[in-house]
Amino acid sequence: MSEKLKGNILVTGANRGIGLELVKQLAGDEAHIYACCRAPEGSGAEALRDLTTQYPGKISIIQLDTSDEDSISAAVQAVNKQIGAGGLNLLINNAAINKPGTPAPLSASGKKDMMEVYEINVVGPFLIAKMLLPLLQRAAEMDSTVKDEGDKMSCRRSAIINISSLAGSIKICPENFARAQMYPYRASKAALNMVTRCQSEDFKRHNILVTAIHPGWVRTDMGGQEAPLSTQDSVHGMLAIMSSLSNKDCGMLLDWEGNMIPW
Amino acid sequence: MSEKLKGNILVTGANRGIGLELVKQLAGDEAHIYACCRAPEGSGAEALRDLTTQYPGKISIIQLDTSDEDSISAAVQAVNKQIGAGGLNLLINNAAINKPGTPAPLSASGKKDMMEVYEINVVGPFLIAKMLLPLLQRAAEMDSTVKDEGDKMSCRRSAIINISSLAGSIKICPENFARAQMYPYRASKAALNMVTRCQSEDFKRHNILVTAIHPGWVRTDMGGQEAPLSTQDSVHGMLAIMSSLSNKDCGMLLDWEGNMIPW
Repeated sequence: MSEKLKGNILVTGANRGIGLELVKQLAGDEAHIYACCRAPEGSGAEALRDLTTQYPGKISIIQLDTSDEDSISAAVQAVNKQIGAGGLNLLINNAAINKPGTPAPLSASGKKDMMEVYEINVVGPFLIAKMLLPLLQRAAEMDSTVKDEGDKMSCRRSAIINISSLAGSIKICPENFARAQMYPYRASKAALNMVTRCQSEDFKRHNILVTAIHPGWVRTDMGGQEAPLSTQDSVHGMLAIMSSLSNKDCGMLLDWEGNMIPW
Repeated sequence: MSEKLKGNILVTGANRGIGLELVKQLAGDEAHIYACCRAPEGSGAEALRDLTTQYPGKISIIQLDTSDEDSISAAVQAVNKQIGAGGLNLLINNAAINKPGTPAPLSASGKKDMMEVYEINVVGPFLIAKMLLPLLQRAAEMDSTVKDEGDKMSCRRSAIINISSLAGSIKICPENFARAQMYPYRASKAALNMVTRCQSEDFKRHNILVTAIHPGWVRTDMGGQEAPLSTQDSVHGMLAIMSSLSNKDCGMLLDWEGNMIPW
C-alpha cells in the first residue's frame, strides 16, 4: 500500500462536489490545504467554511476565479505568501463547468458555450499550473526522501493532477456520444488531456509528475442524481490512486480506480 | 483507383498555403469551389483572385472570418443563395492559426493565444459545420448513385474534412514535444479531433462522412521554409485520400498519405 498524501495541496473548485470532498478527506491527513473557490464569502461556500472550523489550521480558503487571469495571479500571490519554504506539493485542478449541460445536442451548443467551457476547463488549469510552477519546483527540489532515481516522481513530492473525464476520450467517444453529446465539454476535456500530456513532458525535468484523472460518473450538480457513484467513493478512490502514482503514470489518463483510459 | 472529387466544395482559409493549393488543384476537376477567406479584396488574396480568372465560372470567392459568428452566418447565406438544389458535397475546414508560433515554449504562451487559437481552429470549424449542415444534408439526400449501403458515405456525396495535425495527437505528443511545444495549437487540434469524432457520430445518420486529415509538415507560412513537404505534394496526396474515403474512414484521423494517426 502507498503512503497517504501530505504537504501543501491546492484544490480548485473546492466549495462543492468533488472539490469539497477532496478537501474534507485530505483535511484528516498530514496536509495543509489551499482550498480555492470563486466566492469564499458566499452561501455556496458555507460547507467549505464549516470545514475550516472542523479542522482548525489545516485549510486556507483562497479566492480564485479560474476564468480571470488577474484572480489567478492574486491567488498565486496569496498562496506564495503563506506557503513557506516547502513549496507546493500537489495542485489538483478540479474546477470545471459543463455548458449547456447534459445531453446538450449540437443544436443547443453555440460559440458562447464553446468559449466559456474552454476558458474554465482548459485555460484556467493551464494558467494556474504555469503560475504555480515555481512553487511546485521548490517542492520538487526540497524533497530529500528520494532514493530511487527510477521512481523519483510522486504526489507527495510535486505533482499536478488535472481532473479530466472519460467524455474527453476521443477514442471512446462513439461508445457514449448518443447519451451525452456535449461538444463544448468533450472538446475541452480532450484539450485538457493534451495540456496534461504537454505538461508531463515539459515538467519531468523538474521532477514534477502530471497525470489526468477521470473521477467516474459522480452524483454532483454536474453529474446529476442518477449517477452511480457517490462523491465520497470517487474521492476516496482518486486519493488512493494519487498516493500511488509514480514515474510510469506521468502523462497518462487514469480513472478513479486506476484503470488507464485511451486518449 | 478512386474517382476525382466533384460537386460543390467549400474551402476555408483559401487565399494562401494549403487552402490556395486546394482551390488550384480542385479547379481543374468537375467541381465548383466556394473559396472562403477573410479579406477577398486585400493584397493577401491576389493569388486566389488570379485563379478565378484562370478558371472562369469555377470559383466563387466568399468573405469569411472564422472568428466572427456573424461573418460565418453571412458566408453561409451567400453560399446558400448560389448553390442550388445539389447542396454542398464537401466542406474542407482548413483555416487555422498557430500562435505564438513555433516552438512556443510555455513561457511564451498565455491566455490570449490559448483563446484565440481555440476560437479559430476549433470554434470556427464547429460553427461552420453546424450552419452548413442543411446544405450538406441536401447533398447527401440528392445522391442517387449510392448502390451499396455498406459504403454509402464519400467526399463526392457529402462530407466534412477537418484539417488537423499530427501535433494534435495526444498519444504521439512526447515524440515531438521538445521541438514544438505549442500548447495553444496542440490543445486546439486535440479539441478539433474530438469535434471531428463527435460530428462523425452525430452526422452518420445523415450519411455525411467526417474525417480529420493531417497535411504533413508543409512549406507554408505556418510550417516554415525548412518543412520537407511542398504544398503541391501535400494537397495532391490529401485530395487522393479524400476521394478514396468511405464509411470505414468516418471519425478517423489520417495523414496526407492515408496512414491512420492515433488520438
